[in-house]
Amino acid sequence: MKLLILNGPNLNLQGRRDREVYGAESFEEFIPRLRTQYPDVVIDYAQSNVEGELINTLHKAEGVYDGVLFNAGGYTHTSVALRDAVGAIAVPVIEIHISNIASREEFRHTSLIGATCVGSIAGFGLDSYRLGVEAMLNR
Amino acid sequence: MKLLILNGPNLNLQGRRDREVYGAESFEEFIPRLRTQYPDVVIDYAQSNVEGELINTLHKAEGVYDGVLFNAGGYTHTSVALRDAVGAIAVPVIEIHISNIASREEFRHTSLIGATCVGSIAGFGLDSYRLGVEAMLNR
Amino acid sequence: MKLLILNGPNLNLQGRRDREVYGAESFEEFIPRLRTQYPDVVIDYAQSNVEGELINTLHKAEGVYDGVLFNAGGYTHTSVALRDAVGAIAVPVIEIHISNIASREEFRHTSLIGATCVGSIAGFGLDSYRLGVEAMLNR
Amino acid sequence: MKLLILNGPNLNLQGRRDREVYGAESFEEFIPRLRTQYPDVVIDYAQSNVEGELINTLHKAEGVYDGVLFNAGGYTHTSVALRDAVGAIAVPVIEIHISNIASREEFRHTSLIGATCVGSIAGFGLDSYRLGVEAMLNR
Amino acid sequence: MKLLILNGPNLNLQGRRDREVYGAESFEEFIPRLRTQYPDVVIDYAQSNVEGELINTLHKAEGVYDGVLFNAGGYTHTSVALRDAVGAIAVPVIEIHISNIASREEFRHTSLIGATCVGSIAGFGLDSYRLGVEAMLNR
Amino acid sequence: MKLLILNGPNLNLQGRRDREVYGAESFEEFIPRLRTQYPDVVIDYAQSNVEGELINTLHKAEGVYDGVLFNAGGYTHTSVALRDAVGAIAVPVIEIHISNIASREEFRHTSLIGATCVGSIAGFGLDSYRLGVEAMLNR
Amino acid sequence: MKLLILNGPNLNLQGRRDREVYGAESFEEFIPRLRTQYPDVVIDYAQSNVEGELINTLHKAEGVYDGVLFNAGGYTHTSVALRDAVGAIAVPVIEIHISNIASREEFRHTSLIGATCVGSIAGFGLDSYRLGVEAMLNR
Amino acid sequence: MKLLILNGPNLNLQGRRDREVYGAESFEEFIPRLRTQYPDVVIDYAQSNVEGELINTLHKAEGVYDGVLFNAGGYTHTSVALRDAVGAIAVPVIEIHISNIASREEFRHTSLIGATCVGSIAGFGLDSYRLGVEAMLNR
Amino acid sequence: MKLLILNGPNLNLQGRRDREVYGAESFEEFIPRLRTQYPDVVIDYAQSNVEGELINTLHKAEGVYDGVLFNAGGYTHTSVALRDAVGAIAVPVIEIHISNIASREEFRHTSLIGATCVGSIAGFGLDSYRLGVEAMLNR
Amino acid sequence: MKLLILNGPNLNLQGRRDREVYGAESFEEFIPRLRTQYPDVVIDYAQSNVEGELINTLHKAEGVYDGVLFNAGGYTHTSVALRDAVGAIAVPVIEIHISNIASREEFRHTSLIGATCVGSIAGFGLDSYRLGVEAMLNR
Amino acid sequence: MKLLILNGPNLNLQGRRDREVYGAESFEEFIPRLRTQYPDVVIDYAQSNVEGELINTLHKAEGVYDGVLFNAGGYTHTSVALRDAVGAIAVPVIEIHISNIASREEFRHTSLIGATCVGSIAGFGLDSYRLGVEAMLNR
Amino acid sequence: MKLLILNGPNLNLQGRRDREVYGAESFEEFIPRLRTQYPDVVIDYAQSNVEGELINTLHKAEGVYDGVLFNAGGYTHTSVALRDAVGAIAVPVIEIHISNIASREEFRHTSLIGATCVGSIAGFGLDSYRLGVEAMLNR
Repeated sequence: MKLLILNGPNLNLQGRRDREVYGAESFEEFIPRLRTQYPDVVIDYAQSNVEGELINTLHKAEGVYDGVLFNAGGYTHTSVALRDAVGAIAVPVIEIHISNIASREEFRHTSLIGATCVGSIAGFGLDSYRLGVEAMLNR
Repeated sequence: MKLLILNGPNLNLQGRRDREVYGAESFEEFIPRLRTQYPDVVIDYAQSNVEGELINTLHKAEGVYDGVLFNAGGYTHTSVALRDAVGAIAVPVIEIHISNIASREEFRHTSLIGATCVGSIAGFGLDSYRLGVEAMLNR
Repeated sequence: MKLLILNGPNLNLQGRRDREVYGAESFEEFIPRLRTQYPDVVIDYAQSNVEGELINTLHKAEGVYDGVLFNAGGYTHTSVALRDAVGAIAVPVIEIHISNIASREEFRHTSLIGATCVGSIAGFGLDSYRLGVEAMLNR
Repeated sequence: MKLLILNGPNLNLQGRRDREVYGAESFEEFIPRLRTQYPDVVIDYAQSNVEGELINTLHKAEGVYDGVLFNAGGYTHTSVALRDAVGAIAVPVIEIHISNIASREEFRHTSLIGATCVGSIAGFGLDSYRLGVEAMLNR
Repeated sequence: MKLLILNGPNLNLQGRRDREVYGAESFEEFIPRLRTQYPDVVIDYAQSNVEGELINTLHKAEGVYDGVLFNAGGYTHTSVALRDAVGAIAVPVIEIHISNIASREEFRHTSLIGATCVGSIAGFGLDSYRLGVEAMLNR
Repeated sequence: MKLLILNGPNLNLQGRRDREVYGAESFEEFIPRLRTQYPDVVIDYAQSNVEGELINTLHKAEGVYDGVLFNAGGYTHTSVALRDAVGAIAVPVIEIHISNIASREEFRHTSLIGATCVGSIAGFGLDSYRLGVEAMLNR
Repeated sequence: MKLLILNGPNLNLQGRRDREVYGAESFEEFIPRLRTQYPDVVIDYAQSNVEGELINTLHKAEGVYDGVLFNAGGYTHTSVALRDAVGAIAVPVIEIHISNIASREEFRHTSLIGATCVGSIAGFGLDSYRLGVEAMLNR
Repeated sequence: MKLLILNGPNLNLQGRRDREVYGAESFEEFIPRLRTQYPDVVIDYAQSNVEGELINTLHKAEGVYDGVLFNAGGYTHTSVALRDAVGAIAVPVIEIHISNIASREEFRHTSLIGATCVGSIAGFGLDSYRLGVEAMLNR
Repeated sequence: MKLLILNGPNLNLQGRRDREVYGAESFEEFIPRLRTQYPDVVIDYAQSNVEGELINTLHKAEGVYDGVLFNAGGYTHTSVALRDAVGAIAVPVIEIHISNIASREEFRHTSLIGATCVGSIAGFGLDSYRLGVEAMLNR
Repeated sequence: MKLLILNGPNLNLQGRRDREVYGAESFEEFIPRLRTQYPDVVIDYAQSNVEGELINTLHKAEGVYDGVLFNAGGYTHTSVALRDAVGAIAVPVIEIHISNIASREEFRHTSLIGATCVGSIAGFGLDSYRLGVEAMLNR
Repeated sequence: MKLLILNGPNLNLQGRRDREVYGAESFEEFIPRLRTQYPDVVIDYAQSNVEGELINTLHKAEGVYDGVLFNAGGYTHTSVALRDAVGAIAVPVIEIHISNIASREEFRHTSLIGATCVGSIAGFGLDSYRLGVEAMLNR
Repeated sequence: MKLLILNGPNLNLQGRRDREVYGAESFEEFIPRLRTQYPDVVIDYAQSNVEGELINTLHKAEGVYDGVLFNAGGYTHTSVALRDAVGAIAVPVIEIHISNIASREEFRHTSLIGATCVGSIAGFGLDSYRLGVEAMLNR
């Protein structure tokens, strides 16, 4: 199984910004640890702050990956274009959030991209991504 | 580790109603299978269609369980009382949904109880519960 | 034909409360009169103020009744769980109201359970139930 | 007893348009059948696609009919003028719908004319009209 | 004078949960203290987490009590059924809240049951109940 | 000066319907009385329940009348087409209402046609029309 | 007949500010001209920019005036206190506006004070006040 | 190919009203010019200010025309009845607007009839109709 | 203990206006009676119809009173400035209403000033003020 | 005449994704075909999934193209920046959509960029672009 | 250059109330310091808690001051009358706020008076006023 | 002190587009002039039309600049991602606007990014940026 972890805006700062909300571990530390946990799964990682590059990456995932774990960050709540991109590809996409968005500001309670994803996992810190791998393995 | 899977209204029909949305496996079949997968975890199961009995069960979970996997069904979107019940106990509660509520009717897109839960998992069929066990084990 | 008349919250007070709106006849008087009018129809009667017990009763109607005449009272406007319960069973359910809810407070103008019922009858006093029997007979 | 069945816009197409929603029987077939069922009731029939002509017909019903069964079609949800027309006459008016409007588009869930009618019957196909006759007979 | 103090969901946890908001005194301690303060008043106490049982209790208060001090907890903001139950009985009901709901989350600012109560007292801790007794005595 | 009094839906019932709100005098009685009061003003009268005929009449007023006193009745709150018709002609139009719409149902508080009229007079019974004549004379 | 013309905020600038909207005549010029037109009517004039002083003046109008012509200016759309003041006195109050508020910004389309006034006149420049005198004379 | 150009309210004034928005050419001039441009297409023209007559005309288009170019004018934004009429016939209907409604008042931004049309063309003056012919020819 | 009863707009008319809602006793009668009931409490009284004077009075209460019983009347629902004034002083303020605002017009259901008060008492006639004294004594 | 066809997010997938909605022809096939149809028109083509690159391209169109046919895809409904970009250039821009957005999800019914475009064409498949060329030629 | 600093409700408490939000310096200390910084500018200071007195002061600023720095405090979000007052005078007015209102309660995010001011400065403590002086000097 | 002026979409057109709103001076002219005025401040300048590049630039400002003056243009009102980017860095950011956004279209009245900025300056043309420098110097 080949998976892509795709992160959106500001997630390159993970481990540095707002550690109370997001935790202290960076993706540079987390991804290798995750690969060790799931040696049979190929796990690629990509991040961009540019909405359109996230769309490009989603398009290119077609035919290459068996699934995408997608944390769209702030674009989650505002991007029809990303919703359409997820809906336009056949690869299953799982919506991932590090924090529990339901307990934050009201504008974070609605997800525009959720409707075209297959499911969502939120609130478990970086473990949300590992749960995404588990979910993909079990489909 | 001792966990409670707590199901709300209509989930006693799982496996019988609307199989396209919810799948064909019942909880009577699923729970034993889950226990087999996680032999070191004590997994109790409770279900009620009565909002107040769910509150009672949540209250009694205090000091007994290390975590609750809670699928509040239709009460998810309407119950301040359940939100308060989750918030009133120290046991961590994870919001679980079988279907991907973000792709269903608009009134299912907002969760009143999410704010007092620690996180949420939705859209993976009964595997959402197993992912909840995974999430609890990794806390 | 076997029908269930199922009444929700406060309808046990019928004939005693607010007679200008709801009329003076109680269900204890009305149901026998209705059975006399439709001797070929088995008409059972149940009432509960507890939302979850109404769900239980709807679940148990499956395979027992040919139809349910359901007055959900105040739960009509607030209960996703009852809407799901009606949608989860194959028995046809007709939404019944004694008063004309369209001429009362605005929050009574929208019905959450209506979408999963087959139709609705409102505003004819207790005769709304008899019309429900007529509608069931003619399906 | 003398009743008027009054139909609004597009109901002249009944039996021809969208048969899955509205059924295959036309009013030309239904009305005679209904008269046969209720030989003691005089049942007149009128239809117009023009909102103002429906108002005219309602005005003229005063002193002529004992009741009006009124399916205002698409005007149900938009016409203050028809609401006022129903409220301006002493003849009791029952709101009728062929389909179950509560399970269709959201703009069909609110009825502007309902507040001045005595009650409403929706979702039973053409039998909604027969139930209206029943309701009028029992007042 | 005979009064009923009726508490809704989660109020059985009073004194244990969230002491900063609700204080440390339980109802087991408070009620006897209150009876001592008002020896001429019979003060009964009931609590339930079940919406429908609260309705049942309100119905049974008719003819038994001179007044009800009712803290509906989270049902305050969501229950049309409880609003109707309060409106259906002749016993005067006062809406009671321990905390100042106007300074909490926005969904707690509107009370569905307030319209059928005679008045409301909120924000004085358990003393809100004593003020309710005072209010009843002075009617 | 030549004026047109143009009345919309249900105003043909004036003097007969809902006398508490609208008064007992009909337009058949009022118009001659008004002509007597303003002998130098030619006052024509037209009424229709059909929205489109009101539009036709407004179009034909161009070049014929110095002003129109227009009571659009229930169309006031729903008709973009009438708003456009008033805006499309050069003849000044004054919005007239018999009752004080600001103290009635909320949907009567907003006027779609008001933006293209020169002013509005509401709440003085049939004297609202006379005040309209006064307003036209003084322009 | 004794009338009070009561003006609210910014109307002391009439004739100086925004002449395209409000015209060039000041109240210092207009009021004497109005008194000349209606020699049998005592017309007093008051203006204040202070909401509370307008309330004071309305209170004092009781038993002194037969009517008040009230232009509440910007308070029209925001003041519950003025609405209550108008409703608290027996003197009839007519809502007056110089400009046609229906063709201005949307927040000017709703009047909070209109519900307790007897009627409203808007859009005729200072002639709106004269029409108010006419309306009072004809009551 | 046989097409019907159907115009709604106020479009009979085209060429005379508000020339800055709608241009100076009337339909009397435009239609012959259009026929000359498309000699192989039969182009009929109809206009009515009456909503119900537009419905009648749409109904009659069935079996007669290969397509309808429909400018519903002000009814575009308010008429459920016209939406249903378009949806009830098999003839394809294209929504046409002379002006760019997206740059006008907010209530013109939503089209009720658009959902049952096959497409829409707006903002090109009378050329919008010619583009509609082009669109029909290319289907 | 030294308390200030502070009344807002229109409360100077208490006992004279709308006696069905507010009762017949004036504050001139009530305050002395209240002082007699609580001889150990110094009770001062102030009223103003001017929002800014109420703010002035609240500011001056600092260091002088142990508490303020504040009925802001119509300003309750519209004044951010009063909310800020209550929040700016250390003296505890209790929101008081004579009538049960929850059963009146919808715009009276939300209180802007409630968030900065310590609690609220509404619906007990003038006894609401006495309950406020009780609440202050027990803090 | 020199035109730019500018496509936004996900339109690079045209012909591959969701063929029922968007058709099977790609832009690689369509553009040459279009150039053949309009040999006198220079038709350039650009596409980007990046909102800011679309803005860059619009800026560079100034002085180069006589018109832009712009399908902003999902950015149509969310981008103030694109609306401003269209408004900032003198080149006329026509809004193009392949599908009939009025019959899709509600959030696709409003266009933020429409107000600064000259017109819009939607619902005709790729022929929408050809109609845009026609519209540009006729300006 | 002659400027007026005009402060609205509760700003007389500056330096005493809520120092975390507003800072510890009072206007009695700040204004002289500001005058020292800008010796060539005449800086007058006025404050009132009364909305109408703020209007009076704005009116009197005409012809006297070259600019007004106006912190309307809580009236910023609720006063149409102040908006009109600012719009009625020719003196340029700058909206000033001490705190960053965009990061406070949602009702503080919209400014009714901003539309008639020339610009706004918020969030810099008392330095917001100095920046206002800078802005006025540079116009 | 080292500052970054960061401009968002369409601001590269400054001096060329819509000069009535934005003025005629370009940033190429303004920035050197600003540097001359504040010789002790290092002022860097960056602009991008790409949302994600603005995020990148904000991230890189950390540890390099003492402050950022950020005009997010059209992204101000729609970008959660930029709001999060501003909140994720320790460098203070001031929101800058050239025009007075409070007097433009309603969707420009709310700023999503304002909550994480330290303050905002709007409406003073390019001088808004100089005021931002002043504000930064005085912190």
